[in-house]
Amino acid sequence: MTDAHTTRVWRIATDGPADTQGLARLIEENSIDPSQIVAIFGKTEGNGCVNDFTRGYATQSLRQMLAAHIGVAAATDIAMVMSGGTEGVLSPHLTVITRGAAERVNPTTDKSLTVGIARTPVIASEDIGRRPQIDAVAAAVGTALEQAGIDDPADVHYVQVKCPLLTSQKIHQAEGRQQPLATTDTYKSMGYSRGASALGVALALGEIEASSVDDRTVLADMSRYSDVASASAGSELDYCEVIVLGNSATATGPLYAQHAVMQDAIDAAAVQRAISGETADHTLVQVLAKAEADPAGEVRGRRHTMINDSDINHTRHARAVVGGVIAALSGEPMVYVSGGAEHQGPAGGGVIAAILSRA
Amino acid sequence: MTDAHTTRVWRIATDGPADTQGLARLIEENSIDPSQIVAIFGKTEGNGCVNDFTRGYATQSLRQMLAAHIGVAAATDIAMVMSGGTEGVLSPHLTVITRGAAERVNPTTDKSLTVGIARTPVIASEDIGRRPQIDAVAAAVGTALEQAGIDDPADVHYVQVKCPLLTSQKIHQAEGRQQPLATTDTYKSMGYSRGASALGVALALGEIEASSVDDRTVLADMSRYSDVASASAGSELDYCEVIVLGNSATATGPLYAQHAVMQDAIDAAAVQRAISGETADHTLVQVLAKAEADPAGEVRGRRHTMINDSDINHTRHARAVVGGVIAALSGEPMVYVSGGAEHQGPAGGGVIAAILSRA
Amino acid sequence: MTDAHTTRVWRIATDGPADTQGLARLIEENSIDPSQIVAIFGKTEGNGCVNDFTRGYATQSLRQMLAAHIGVAAATDIAMVMSGGTEGVLSPHLTVITRGAAERVNPTTDKSLTVGIARTPVIASEDIGRRPQIDAVAAAVGTALEQAGIDDPADVHYVQVKCPLLTSQKIHQAEGRQQPLATTDTYKSMGYSRGASALGVALALGEIEASSVDDRTVLADMSRYSDVASASAGSELDYCEVIVLGNSATATGPLYAQHAVMQDAIDAAAVQRAISGETADHTLVQVLAKAEADPAGEVRGRRHTMINDSDINHTRHARAVVGGVIAALSGEPMVYVSGGAEHQGPAGGGVIAAILSRA
Amino acid sequence: MTDAHTTRVWRIATDGPADTQGLARLIEENSIDPSQIVAIFGKTEGNGCVNDFTRGYATQSLRQMLAAHIGVAAATDIAMVMSGGTEGVLSPHLTVITRGAAERVNPTTDKSLTVGIARTPVIASEDIGRRPQIDAVAAAVGTALEQAGIDDPADVHYVQVKCPLLTSQKIHQAEGRQQPLATTDTYKSMGYSRGASALGVALALGEIEASSVDDRTVLADMSRYSDVASASAGSELDYCEVIVLGNSATATGPLYAQHAVMQDAIDAAAVQRAISGETADHTLVQVLAKAEADPAGEVRGRRHTMINDSDINHTRHARAVVGGVIAALSGEPMVYVSGGAEHQGPAGGGVIAAILSRA
Repeated sequence: MTDAHTTRVWRIATDGPADTQGLARLIEENSIDPSQIVAIFGKTEGNGCVNDFTRGYATQSLRQMLAAHIGVAAATDIAMVMSGGTEGVLSPHLTVITRGAAERVNPTTDKSLTVGIARTPVIASEDIGRRPQIDAVAAAVGTALEQAGIDDPADVHYVQVKCPLLTSQKIHQAEGRQQPLATTDTYKSMGYSRGASALGVALALGEIEASSVDDRTVLADMSRYSDVASASAGSELDYCEVIVLGNSATATGPLYAQHAVMQDAIDAAAVQRAISGETADHTLVQVLAKAEADPAGEVRGRRHTMINDSDINHTRHARAVVGGVIAALSGEPMVYVSGGAEHQGPAGGGVIAAILSRA
Repeated sequence: MTDAHTTRVWRIATDGPADTQGLARLIEENSIDPSQIVAIFGKTEGNGCVNDFTRGYATQSLRQMLAAHIGVAAATDIAMVMSGGTEGVLSPHLTVITRGAAERVNPTTDKSLTVGIARTPVIASEDIGRRPQIDAVAAAVGTALEQAGIDDPADVHYVQVKCPLLTSQKIHQAEGRQQPLATTDTYKSMGYSRGASALGVALALGEIEASSVDDRTVLADMSRYSDVASASAGSELDYCEVIVLGNSATATGPLYAQHAVMQDAIDAAAVQRAISGETADHTLVQVLAKAEADPAGEVRGRRHTMINDSDINHTRHARAVVGGVIAALSGEPMVYVSGGAEHQGPAGGGVIAAILSRA
Repeated sequence: MTDAHTTRVWRIATDGPADTQGLARLIEENSIDPSQIVAIFGKTEGNGCVNDFTRGYATQSLRQMLAAHIGVAAATDIAMVMSGGTEGVLSPHLTVITRGAAERVNPTTDKSLTVGIARTPVIASEDIGRRPQIDAVAAAVGTALEQAGIDDPADVHYVQVKCPLLTSQKIHQAEGRQQPLATTDTYKSMGYSRGASALGVALALGEIEASSVDDRTVLADMSRYSDVASASAGSELDYCEVIVLGNSATATGPLYAQHAVMQDAIDAAAVQRAISGETADHTLVQVLAKAEADPAGEVRGRRHTMINDSDINHTRHARAVVGGVIAALSGEPMVYVSGGAEHQGPAGGGVIAAILSRA
Repeated sequence: MTDAHTTRVWRIATDGPADTQGLARLIEENSIDPSQIVAIFGKTEGNGCVNDFTRGYATQSLRQMLAAHIGVAAATDIAMVMSGGTEGVLSPHLTVITRGAAERVNPTTDKSLTVGIARTPVIASEDIGRRPQIDAVAAAVGTALEQAGIDDPADVHYVQVKCPLLTSQKIHQAEGRQQPLATTDTYKSMGYSRGASALGVALALGEIEASSVDDRTVLADMSRYSDVASASAGSELDYCEVIVLGNSATATGPLYAQHAVMQDAIDAAAVQRAISGETADHTLVQVLAKAEADPAGEVRGRRHTMINDSDINHTRHARAVVGGVIAALSGEPMVYVSGGAEHQGPAGGGVIAAILSRA
């Protein structure tokens, strides 16, 4: 079991993908102890699609700055999830999460925000988008839950998975080994990997049963999904990295998490539920949400044109909408909204998690 | 003074810019008398920018279908305003407005929805974006108000102006006549024409004083604007066409209009005010709104990236956001949101008008 | 066998998708007899992808104008192939092809330009992208060859096929009839339909053997293709329309066709071969070519970024390149270059046909 | 006067903006002495417009890698010009230029390739796009010529200038000091700065006379320009950096430069002149060229649609065309083509320089 600890969250505006000054200043003025940083979520101003290099640029810039404070190895250990695409009013920023010694005894019996991270072993190319990846992610979620001090799945409010994709090189190697793959299309492998990751989360949290899911479930049976999973694929890793956010009695401090599930991109009621504090004086610290253009081509029975738009990728449309809706209802455009939601909530919808402060 | 009349409004989904079947069906089943059609607003699925041909395609298709019913001349007289760009959840559709004999005595003392249209004389190229255009639009608004039976500017809730722009040909001709123009840039002339049109509306409605506005006001003094103007420029006309929507005691029927002014793209309170009926059982018939990426580069103090995005025009981002916010709060994605808002409401914001039904 | 006839070709600049004035003027001044128009190829300034409505807009505008001259039925009979996308220096225009009585005895023993058109029966949804479509197109090519008076496949230099795609509606209907389809993805069905059409051309011309091709060949075995096919899919028809361009001894007049096969998008030698006249005083009348981003991700061993570009569709990149290369070598940007080349020439390349004049 | 020296040029493919492995390998195997690197030109796969972060990402990655070899200060001294945009067949790569001790006596009396770099002082915001910037660049070109050992302007074949732009912050500061600026539009300031830089090159090389140019020349009198200038603006510097490429008798080695001026984007003859060696066995090492969509809207009298395309910036179209034309004529897609050409060659055209090898 995990020790008593306090999780803190900073939201820091950036002037561009390489801007680390806001975080550097907080470190220099001793507001943030860089050795306590567990994870950084970022929204960067690229297209959020295949050729978005702002994610790598931000990660490189952050690791370089942090290495000067805590060394290369410790900087590399921090889980970094950069999500490209700040369409509409979405504002580029970083969300920095630290885990430190318990600051004070939890003033109430309430559970407080906690974070846990874990990594799977390397996922073989032929396992991407298939049951072995599902199982590996499920196991990593279990490890992260333990680290976070969460034993009730109901206390989990957001699970980020960063997962590998199939590059041309990996595909050639697998073909050399005569290993058939889930897909030989680089772009599609991103969807397979995200989908299997989300199913892994669902399995770990008991949202689906182990017997109900196999290779053919991925990207096919969209009725099986996790209410709290958010997955993104990247070429820079060959394992899966898991970040669990939830509440734990072992955690102290004013922060806590909650979530709702948006049934579609304009589900104002779900947004309202997610961002409303337990009491009126609770303040909103950050929102993390998924956005997706409804694959059926309709929202509330009205045709949308996002999927047939050959000029703007549908994920960009979807982030603009969900970002706008959350900003309108919360008054805050500096929120984390990421696109692509296979098996991550119902088709066309997805999780919206909020971190609030009781103080 | 105008005779007693009833204004009716239909919202018709379209499958593409050339789809006139929905309207044709309503005509064939005698729901709509085509000779009573005064104006058609459309949202078409183009980019809403310079090379958006879906607007012309929709207009051509509608005039062709209507000409078969009421003749070419009458079909040409109908005011048609096609606005390109159905980003995000916005759903392509037509809003058809008819004006017919008073259907019944107005059941209450309430004023009901009315519509008036008018055209300016041809605007000379050297007058575009300048005081003569402002004055011509102001005069046309006056004529349209009279036709609508509105004598109190407070009863005006939406004024659409369709205005000309400078084409390369017009610029060459003016240069031949040695007439200096407001701009020799085709694209910029759209902003000048929209801006002067909106100032003309403001002048007619007493929102600004005649002595306070001259050529230098246009696109320069953004503190002067109309709360109810919505202007769009097109190359297909050389005069300005004005459509006034408001309420009048001479109009009967269940419909009425109201409006609010969005201070920014996520002004949920303004949206709520605009779409809420006088009583709870009033239903929302249609919403018409302007969208704009805040030119200062910030929304609620948070940096946005819409203006610096060289892949997606900022008007497309803005429509996605405003369309999403209105859809989330009203539950309806089939609304009319158009972009570009010079002198049309405060910078970064704009009018949101709603048509509601008491029945 | 076909009667002696003369095929003529006009290239007409357009100011936009709806501009029919250039053609109207040629008709009014009796240069073109509208009843002799067999086919019109157009380049329109849309994105050339799914949501490109400039193609339909141009077709509607042309049929409307021509109907006033020759009636609706005859206007509908003209084969119209509008190709969207005038990237780079490509200039929007129409290529109008007429077939009239033999103007004079062919001055030489040379064969002259001829054209033949034919239509397949309706292609059932379950046959799209499969052997029945291949066979139907092959039969139609045979009919068109006969009409054109071509009996040697070596005299065929360009075969345009316009083919249907699977719409959502068609997919639902086929599912209701429990008919499995080649794909249930609307966008992918375009590739299947183009691919099967091109294989049909290859079969008719003896480029592949009937025994070597079946359902599994389509989009899979890219070593089988036609050197002269150019196919495009559209939702406006449910049959395939075939236009054959070639040379025939039954045709008289100064024009003749020739072609080469570009091995990649920068195959200057192939362009040069295609556009060079039999003798130095022969003039170039028009060029028709296919463009494709090499699916292997490389051109001449150098990585290109067209396929991974999520902002600009790869077909748009490819047309800009091929259009630029042809314009540079011929001095003429008003050429017909269309994108998407499954089974139409070698991967990454495609046909380039030229029409020249001996006069 | 400069010492005898040898200039060498490497062209290195990259897998992405952060890929420095090719250069690192050449350093590790002692092919390149990193202390001899004078300049690096790169093509990176961004949009080449305002929000293209691939340029900064590449620069950061290169400086980080080189600092490990030669220290931070020396790595910072290397002139790095990253040009975004690899549209069409253009292939991402680096061009690395070194200057080392004379390798051998020049075998002929021919002049060999030389390089010179220089920096202006900081350009005050109010001087950007105006005469002081023109003069400062002219002076820096003089210094670079001296370093390069060039005394005849006819020996200059390419002058790259990297120049500052006006950021929002700079504009605010200048307004505080009540200093009127050439423009208060961030994007337009890029054009002003590029234009003034190119005029500075023209002045230094005697292409225009000092008395013929003042503030009003910039972006207005396009008849004044430099045949060899290539300028790009960036927010990462507040001075101008100049790189001169040409031939000098003090330089030894097999490489030499030459150039031609493309009159338009499809000027095949100019490309041919630029890339053809003095003798047939000379090989082409690299090409550097400018690309621009003709601002008059026509190429060879044919309308193009690049400027009115609201989906794809016209500079992207132009690079695709010029890159394709050069690749077709040279057989090499890994060339340096950059966009935006104010006062850099005739309107719609620009310089094309080639580096060839006599060996």
